[in-house]
Amino acid sequence: MKKVMAGVDIGGTNTVFGLVGSEGNVYAESSIQTGDFTDVNDFVAELSKAIKKLVNNNYELAGIGIGAPNANYYKGTIELAPNLPWKGVIPLAEMINKKTGVPVALTNDANAAAVGEMVFGAAKGMKNFIVLTLGTGLGSGIVINGQLVYGHTAFAGEMGHITMITNGRECGCGKKGCLETYASASGIVRTVLYFLSEMKAESPLRDMAPSALTSKIIAEAAANNDPIAIQAMNYTAEILGLAIINAIIFSSPEAIFLFGGLTKAGDMLFNPVRAYVDKNIMPVFRGTVKILPSGIPENNAATLGAAALAWNDLRKQ
Amino acid sequence: MKKVMAGVDIGGTNTVFGLVGSEGNVYAESSIQTGDFTDVNDFVAELSKAIKKLVNNNYELAGIGIGAPNANYYKGTIELAPNLPWKGVIPLAEMINKKTGVPVALTNDANAAAVGEMVFGAAKGMKNFIVLTLGTGLGSGIVINGQLVYGHTAFAGEMGHITMITNGRECGCGKKGCLETYASASGIVRTVLYFLSEMKAESPLRDMAPSALTSKIIAEAAANNDPIAIQAMNYTAEILGLAIINAIIFSSPEAIFLFGGLTKAGDMLFNPVRAYVDKNIMPVFRGTVKILPSGIPENNAATLGAAALAWNDLRKQ
Repeated sequence: MKKVMAGVDIGGTNTVFGLVGSEGNVYAESSIQTGDFTDVNDFVAELSKAIKKLVNNNYELAGIGIGAPNANYYKGTIELAPNLPWKGVIPLAEMINKKTGVPVALTNDANAAAVGEMVFGAAKGMKNFIVLTLGTGLGSGIVINGQLVYGHTAFAGEMGHITMITNGRECGCGKKGCLETYASASGIVRTVLYFLSEMKAESPLRDMAPSALTSKIIAEAAANNDPIAIQAMNYTAEILGLAIINAIIFSSPEAIFLFGGLTKAGDMLFNPVRAYVDKNIMPVFRGTVKILPSGIPENNAATLGAAALAWNDLRKQ
Repeated sequence: MKKVMAGVDIGGTNTVFGLVGSEGNVYAESSIQTGDFTDVNDFVAELSKAIKKLVNNNYELAGIGIGAPNANYYKGTIELAPNLPWKGVIPLAEMINKKTGVPVALTNDANAAAVGEMVFGAAKGMKNFIVLTLGTGLGSGIVINGQLVYGHTAFAGEMGHITMITNGRECGCGKKGCLETYASASGIVRTVLYFLSEMKAESPLRDMAPSALTSKIIAEAAANNDPIAIQAMNYTAEILGLAIINAIIFSSPEAIFLFGGLTKAGDMLFNPVRAYVDKNIMPVFRGTVKILPSGIPENNAATLGAAALAWNDLRKQ
């Protein structure tokens, strides 16, 4: 019987899960609605049942890896997650282990993405790299000496909240000028609004309600040579590039992987980021770091990342 | 016979070295003038002879640890060090190994300070911490999961050159706004000059040539309630505090150790740094990080750090 790990990605709306082999094959996938479960015990019962149903008698389930917001890897808990229906500190790994009988590892989604890149993606064989997930917010997973960096608290790698601009944009975290208020799918929307205020150039972006603007629309506008969208792309690339330079100075990775909604802009984003980094990096690091798209297929990236955590961390036990 | 490691600190002016036991006892110390040797072969011969002389028949020399500018730990080389008399890439570890017959490890002085803190100082037992050396420049040694962070290139941990202020002060590295142009013994002198220009307060600092100003004089003035010096101390603490916050967000250390000339200001510096970090850090990290003075005695810190590298890295071989 084929040995599999279950990968589970818990989001505010959906919880997606699947069975993944040691080479990254996704054998089965399913989902439940996170918001349907106001009691976490009901959620755990339903999720465990649904995983067992996928496993059936066809696979040997060796463990479960979970990516979830505000996850504490050391303790296996979810702590005070504002976008999940459950309050307080939830001992999720232990609860799921009790229902399923298999070992459970838990980390946040950006860390899961980094382990996914290392185990199944474009970082195979790399000992030092960083994954930046550029979605609604900005998450980061940092690998040093072949190990995910959790730090003393388990919460290392919150690069989205590094201060880039003193007294800059308001961030959801309560601070100002955080990286994710600029370099994320929502950040570039704010940047377009700023350049609509600063520049006089005509642009179809002036005919849309700000609440309807998305990073996808902006990327398409940039591809059509819209001057506002191009300016926004370049500005995003500069701030992201500076954050990347500072991360390189700190930990000297072999590669930086960019992942998530904003990266669909492709070369419109990657090229100015690479150019900025190459121009402004300290000479000792110039040419030592690749800035690359993720090597994980996007349609089941979350499942693969969470399953990679299980393959990487639970196989040793 | 007592087993010892030799610790060697190569500076632009002096090379200091000593014999250090496994518990951090310094049994003998000596020095030679780095600048006397325009040919690195002569330097290696003299240094090796001088170490053997210290060892004599009284100790068993088990290895040599070296702290030097622009050192490449992976290759055992010194690369293009502007403040040393030898040009190009010098295979120093191999050269000294050939002369002495013992294993040699080589790293830069801030990394050696971090290993010293871990092996002999206040970081004993800690797995995640950062040492910042606030001297003429700013050096950093980063320990994650119990290992010094060298990264892909061996040159990780150049925190002195993280950009803090866009288009800020000119740095020796050619960039602008680097952390070390603010948070270092030379940085605080520049900060005093700035506040002498901005503020009208009377101060004995107005009666000194800028070239005669030192961080020690500024610390003494601050202790005497000089308003310019206090303002400079607080400004330094804010920039250093922000850099510390960003490092905490990245790697979540248990402690940050501050070391070097600028830290002689004591509480005048530590208190505003701690207050700034505590006020501005993300809640998830608040109260998780100690900001501490080094636990290594200053008079032979460089020897101890370099010897600690040998005890930590060569004992395993």
